[in-house]
Amino acid sequence: MPALYSISALDRTAQAQIQARIDNKTKPLGALGQLEPLALQLALIQQTPTLRLSNPTLLVFAGDHGVAAEGVSIAPAAVTRQMVLNFLAGGAAINCFCRTLGWQLKVVDAGILEPIDDPRLITQRLGAGTANLALESAMSQTQCQQGLQLGAALARREIASGADLLAFGEMGIANTTSATALLAALTGAPVAACIGRGTGINDTQLAHKQALIEQAVARVAGQTDPQVLLAELGGFELVQICGAILAAAEARVPMLIDGFIVSAAALVACRIALACRDYMLFSHGSAEPGHARLLAAMQAEPLLDLGLRLGEGTGAALALPLLQAAVSFYNDMASFESAGVTV
Amino acid sequence: MPALYSISALDRTAQAQIQARIDNKTKPLGALGQLEPLALQLALIQQTPTLRLSNPTLLVFAGDHGVAAEGVSIAPAAVTRQMVLNFLAGGAAINCFCRTLGWQLKVVDAGILEPIDDPRLITQRLGAGTANLALESAMSQTQCQQGLQLGAALARREIASGADLLAFGEMGIANTTSATALLAALTGAPVAACIGRGTGINDTQLAHKQALIEQAVARVAGQTDPQVLLAELGGFELVQICGAILAAAEARVPMLIDGFIVSAAALVACRIALACRDYMLFSHGSAEPGHARLLAAMQAEPLLDLGLRLGEGTGAALALPLLQAAVSFYNDMASFESAGVTV
Repeated sequence: MPALYSISALDRTAQAQIQARIDNKTKPLGALGQLEPLALQLALIQQTPTLRLSNPTLLVFAGDHGVAAEGVSIAPAAVTRQMVLNFLAGGAAINCFCRTLGWQLKVVDAGILEPIDDPRLITQRLGAGTANLALESAMSQTQCQQGLQLGAALARREIASGADLLAFGEMGIANTTSATALLAALTGAPVAACIGRGTGINDTQLAHKQALIEQAVARVAGQTDPQVLLAELGGFELVQICGAILAAAEARVPMLIDGFIVSAAALVACRIALACRDYMLFSHGSAEPGHARLLAAMQAEPLLDLGLRLGEGTGAALALPLLQAAVSFYNDMASFESAGVTV
Repeated sequence: MPALYSISALDRTAQAQIQARIDNKTKPLGALGQLEPLALQLALIQQTPTLRLSNPTLLVFAGDHGVAAEGVSIAPAAVTRQMVLNFLAGGAAINCFCRTLGWQLKVVDAGILEPIDDPRLITQRLGAGTANLALESAMSQTQCQQGLQLGAALARREIASGADLLAFGEMGIANTTSATALLAALTGAPVAACIGRGTGINDTQLAHKQALIEQAVARVAGQTDPQVLLAELGGFELVQICGAILAAAEARVPMLIDGFIVSAAALVACRIALACRDYMLFSHGSAEPGHARLLAAMQAEPLLDLGLRLGEGTGAALALPLLQAAVSFYNDMASFESAGVTV
């Protein structure tokens, strides 16, 4: 992977100058709260006097999970495909939010059980769902490498077409099981402290989910290579999201990281190349308990906390206007001098 | 006031039907978090199958405060007028946010120290700043009545022109002193538990501010009539916002209540006519400690917590896209049946 990606940390030469510009706006120091570090980070990423977010693109990756057969979700695996059809028909929450808030939305089949023949779908399948991660590696290292490359190539194409902000969504029944296993294996936290109810399983299902994840984590004990863990415990959508994140960071394009699943992919990306973190903004604190641990591992503070537990990238979609507001105050707000306001 | 306003509580006849429509959308039950009660409330207010928020209007009211002469703010009173000029020139944070997010913005002189001759300004002055509320009534009952009527008349004009969502912002050096006094007097909470640093005063200023507010609250001890307290402790901008809230509730138009100052005006409005509360949505939890008490007094949970401490209605401006997202999922998201998704 180091051979494939060349990711640089932010150039912070202009940081004091950018901060001074923010501090001289007509407001008390720091009075725009979280929007101020947001503007600073965007200015450091874009390195231009006028910031621009005119072509935000949200990529929803779908994949199925072998572990779904164990009944770790409220819904059967067939729902992954049904929801992809719903995305294509424009009827899901993420469609509504993207239409309303100005995102370009693209849907990717990264490996659902049964393919869909639809020209609007980006088909880059790594297989018909992963293997059961509790029993064996979810995918081969070759599939994992291929998935990283496919995700990266898609992100690069979108950036070449003008995307200046990327966000990622996901759909995959049982993918909180995969993300939780990744979190536990990457951070060493006990599974019991990482696990949650996903979209709403009962106590019995939760206990079963925990046992399966503990089995999976035990299976890879001692392993620390993030790409090995990604293949062992990941999902096809998670792998492709991870690849897209690496490519966006390489291209110095800001990303909105949303929710538990995407954050797990983001943590893998940070473990592959820490400098990725500089290009990440965090949209929503998920109700899934493990999300706080993922955010802590990346020293991230999300912008929103609306109690969403849907996935699809819905939190990222909702956070876009806050980024646009940060850009607008940075670009257009008067300084004390220009407005003649007493400091 | 009962003679002037006829405010009805929400008609909840259709509530179960609206909730069923939300629950049948293609998502796990409750998975859209706070957006779901938001959609429910908007549907109960508008009582139409298709919700609409196409003409949001934000009114910023400015007024000066006699107590500012005591040095209870980081800024001199002259800054109120300077910031109104900044609003008119389009250079303040609220201008940037309104332009970016689609609000119509109007600025009102409710009684700043020195008038401004500018046709873009809505001039409905109650005086050249209030009296020092620590020593005497901030304004007369006649001024207060007049302010309520002027605020209400403006809201009614905007609604007649098509505004289907109202929000309120404020500018007034020392107005956290006035809002804190109102909070303490209306709820009986000790001043020490209600007070904060506004835009950033030091310990000495904070102690002085507390002493002045305690003096003001002691001055009106035993008084419970909300309109009497509003005249005694309020500000010209607070009074006009309160009138606008009462008129919007009367017209059954939803409102975004933002920040500490506007929330204090909203609590007065609720004490005048409790049914007002049904038409209020809450945008941002202020860093000002008393705000949590105001929200608790109205049983309100704000949508955003971004650490803003600027006023101007900035939190309300930023919350609009969340309302638009709630409207869009309610109007356009597929049901399980229509999308063919397994329940």
